[in-house]
Amino acid sequence: MEFDLIEVIRARVNVTRSDVALGIGDDAALLDVPAGQQLVACTDTLVAGVHFPVGTVPEDIGWKALAVNLSDLAAMGAEPAWALLALTLPDADATFVERFAESFGEFARAHRVALAGGDTTQGPLAVTVTALGFVPHDLALTRSGARAGDAVFVTGTLGDAAGALKMLMEVRSAPAALLARLHRPEPRVAAGLALRGIANTCIDVSDGLLADLGHVCADSKIGAEIEADALPVSPALAASFDAETCRDLALAGGDDYELCFTAPSARETEIVEALARIGCGATRIGRIVAGSGLRLLGAGGNEIQIAHAGWEHFSR
Amino acid sequence: MEFDLIEVIRARVNVTRSDVALGIGDDAALLDVPAGQQLVACTDTLVAGVHFPVGTVPEDIGWKALAVNLSDLAAMGAEPAWALLALTLPDADATFVERFAESFGEFARAHRVALAGGDTTQGPLAVTVTALGFVPHDLALTRSGARAGDAVFVTGTLGDAAGALKMLMEVRSAPAALLARLHRPEPRVAAGLALRGIANTCIDVSDGLLADLGHVCADSKIGAEIEADALPVSPALAASFDAETCRDLALAGGDDYELCFTAPSARETEIVEALARIGCGATRIGRIVAGSGLRLLGAGGNEIQIAHAGWEHFSR
Repeated sequence: MEFDLIEVIRARVNVTRSDVALGIGDDAALLDVPAGQQLVACTDTLVAGVHFPVGTVPEDIGWKALAVNLSDLAAMGAEPAWALLALTLPDADATFVERFAESFGEFARAHRVALAGGDTTQGPLAVTVTALGFVPHDLALTRSGARAGDAVFVTGTLGDAAGALKMLMEVRSAPAALLARLHRPEPRVAAGLALRGIANTCIDVSDGLLADLGHVCADSKIGAEIEADALPVSPALAASFDAETCRDLALAGGDDYELCFTAPSARETEIVEALARIGCGATRIGRIVAGSGLRLLGAGGNEIQIAHAGWEHFSR
Repeated sequence: MEFDLIEVIRARVNVTRSDVALGIGDDAALLDVPAGQQLVACTDTLVAGVHFPVGTVPEDIGWKALAVNLSDLAAMGAEPAWALLALTLPDADATFVERFAESFGEFARAHRVALAGGDTTQGPLAVTVTALGFVPHDLALTRSGARAGDAVFVTGTLGDAAGALKMLMEVRSAPAALLARLHRPEPRVAAGLALRGIANTCIDVSDGLLADLGHVCADSKIGAEIEADALPVSPALAASFDAETCRDLALAGGDDYELCFTAPSARETEIVEALARIGCGATRIGRIVAGSGLRLLGAGGNEIQIAHAGWEHFSR
């Protein structure tokens, strides 16, 4: 089934770049990495029934499969360039592939990502995308390097995707604003680029803020405090859940694809203004402290036990 | 389940390379492509029950998942450098992952491939590997550029993997020499490097010789003739099947991972000697001719109808 489907995909994911010397159709792609830049590479798989509900429309699967990978590049401060697509389908369903590829292509065009190759195989529905991009030497944003005194920031709002999923499971519908965050995440590519040379660390919030900031603390061998009342939640989330549930979703809900980053506290105004210029909200939610692990602080600085904050409910 | 399994894999796939600036453990890997070289990138998925029989031991799956990707790099004349591994498992089976990773690591060490990143997810068993390598500018071997008068060559022997699969299906056992070709293919990386600057086109035989040489002819806008009696088959295959079945397996059996390449006819001796020096057999099996499509010639030059040559039986 492979060859016809590849044509269907190629026709719809038609971003051309001069740095693709040889694209889809040979044993491998030939790509030109610009001089002075490092290659940035990541891969993420979405499995039906695990990473998206069975019955998710192909447009949403195509979008999200690329978006979650560009989010990883964004977290490195990288500029996306190319993708490889490994698509496993139960049968050679041309309509599914057309709809998948239309949306994958729309998203790829928005980020100027060329589809350089891939593989189509028969099997249970799953999509693995490999995203490739560049970052100048010594400007990549990593998880290590957070320092005591850094402020902790997040872009945008947290908990929307997990809120949508919770409502789908409980009442089978959710507000469009929340569903969009679940099905059509917008990776913070421009924010990642803007944070080059500013942020000391950066990670994308895919597993949930607690888990992801925990990775930063572990890799930086340092601790962090989060102010529960500072967590940014959207009007749609606040209108859908009580305050405590909103907090728990913001702390532990996955699939937000916002960036969580640390930077010198003194640069807060500069950072918020720089991200505002590219249409991206940024909120200071806490600080890096000596020690290890995360502490969650309530109003007045009292500690809230993280074990009660929804961690187990939403992690996966 | 993700984090423990990644440690299991990282500990066993422990190839270090100085061009991996940042490997497993961040949002993405940071990699240094050497100046003057093009990046070569491919991805291939293996699905349980489709690309390997259900019940295949994890060691064979780990080996083959990387091998089929290095075969694609070999077909470009590329030097392998890095891999990303996306592993989908029904459950967090540490023993499976240990055995998988041991073998993946053994193979990676043999080819000096560093595992730079990946993803582990829950779902039906499947493995997607992305392989990355380099080739100097203008030396990549592609599928286009075959010229009338070129000789057509293959490395090694054809049909062994398909012969093993046929015997497994029919009599539930097969000679070890054939099984090894099915489960532990050896990609022709050294041969691909040796063919830089010599071969006009190159492809790896993964779908079967007829299909793969057909791609070369289509992309080169030219035709080819294959001499059925020239097809190289192993002693183990010849001892297991009658001559006609051997021929059909050699023509249409997939999973051989030999290289099929075209080169000026006058360079035959040079080519055979160059590949012999690296322990790789090479056999001239036909020639590139004006026109399009493939013709199969029997003894005395009579044409054999390709439709009868097992194409449908073994393609997938």
